[in-house]
Amino acid sequence: MRILHVGASGTIGGAVRTALSDRGHDVVAAHRGSVGWPVDISDPERIHDLLDEVGELDAVVCTAGSTPFGPWQQLDRAAWTSGIESKLLGQIELVRQAVDQTRTGGSFTLISGIIGRERIRSGSVAAAVNGALESWVAAAAAEMGGEHRLNAVSPTVLTESLDRYGDFFPGFPSVAAADVAQAFVRSVEGIDTGRIYRV
Amino acid sequence: MRILHVGASGTIGGAVRTALSDRGHDVVAAHRGSVGWPVDISDPERIHDLLDEVGELDAVVCTAGSTPFGPWQQLDRAAWTSGIESKLLGQIELVRQAVDQTRTGGSFTLISGIIGRERIRSGSVAAAVNGALESWVAAAAAEMGGEHRLNAVSPTVLTESLDRYGDFFPGFPSVAAADVAQAFVRSVEGIDTGRIYRV
Repeated sequence: MRILHVGASGTIGGAVRTALSDRGHDVVAAHRGSVGWPVDISDPERIHDLLDEVGELDAVVCTAGSTPFGPWQQLDRAAWTSGIESKLLGQIELVRQAVDQTRTGGSFTLISGIIGRERIRSGSVAAAVNGALESWVAAAAAEMGGEHRLNAVSPTVLTESLDRYGDFFPGFPSVAAADVAQAFVRSVEGIDTGRIYRV
Repeated sequence: MRILHVGASGTIGGAVRTALSDRGHDVVAAHRGSVGWPVDISDPERIHDLLDEVGELDAVVCTAGSTPFGPWQQLDRAAWTSGIESKLLGQIELVRQAVDQTRTGGSFTLISGIIGRERIRSGSVAAAVNGALESWVAAAAAEMGGEHRLNAVSPTVLTESLDRYGDFFPGFPSVAAADVAQAFVRSVEGIDTGRIYRV
């Protein structure tokens, strides 16, 4: 399949890119720092420019988007806007714009995270953004009526990130990026829609 | 208790206002069209002005906030922004600003909706907004550490609204606004926190 992968840098991004390539797919790897396929999904016009260059697709996979962290009362309107425009509206806009150039039966797989359903200190914006994304995936997938499939992968803390983030996730089992990547492979090659893969 | 009630007009708002007054509470009833206590929660400065006037509180109850409806692909950035600024960030900003003038042990009760967990046509923005709000309530309530309580009420379609909205909710059981109001009473007078009351 010809797959647009947005957010192809980073720990999860690299693992997903490798997993999809290993399965023989033709992966168009876009990310913020990319020379060949640059994109910042918080800007709808950058998404438009990328899709215009890329052309017809069989699937879109996204591992991009970030959220700010901090005590709930200190997360002001600017913090909320940055998380919402990046990980929530950025990913939704990618699907909304890409759907017309993705073949019937093709799929979209987005990235959520465990903080949408488990509470950690300083994670209230991330909770809201992941909760919104997961509810939207279920709602929009149902509206797609089978014409396209839409899923999200919701990983717990990465094993590769325990040194930096482990203290924020006390007692949480971790997952290797390579195992997160397999959930993306399941979504792309499988038959699920409206599904949240909890890994 | 002295309770600030934002969104005191409308079917649910009227029922909540009545239920809280019937329980003997001193209800400060604010809403968009109010002469005495006007407020538009999508504007942080209007929230600030209202709280400045109102002073010390025992609890805050919110039944305000709206979301746009339409086929998922037609809901553009303007539609998303209107729903997010009103029902999501408006309610969160109300809690964030009011917490310092609400007594220790006091509570906040917000309004969500069934579309966060059940899919209906044209409801993808409402799904995301309600999903975000419910995840945020769980996350922020845990961070509050018992100093304040925070809950949300998530009603199905109102019996009073079946004539207008019934066709969007085929086969959904409805709930009377008076029963929705009782969930607000439970939240205000009870001991729950981080709870979503599904009515």
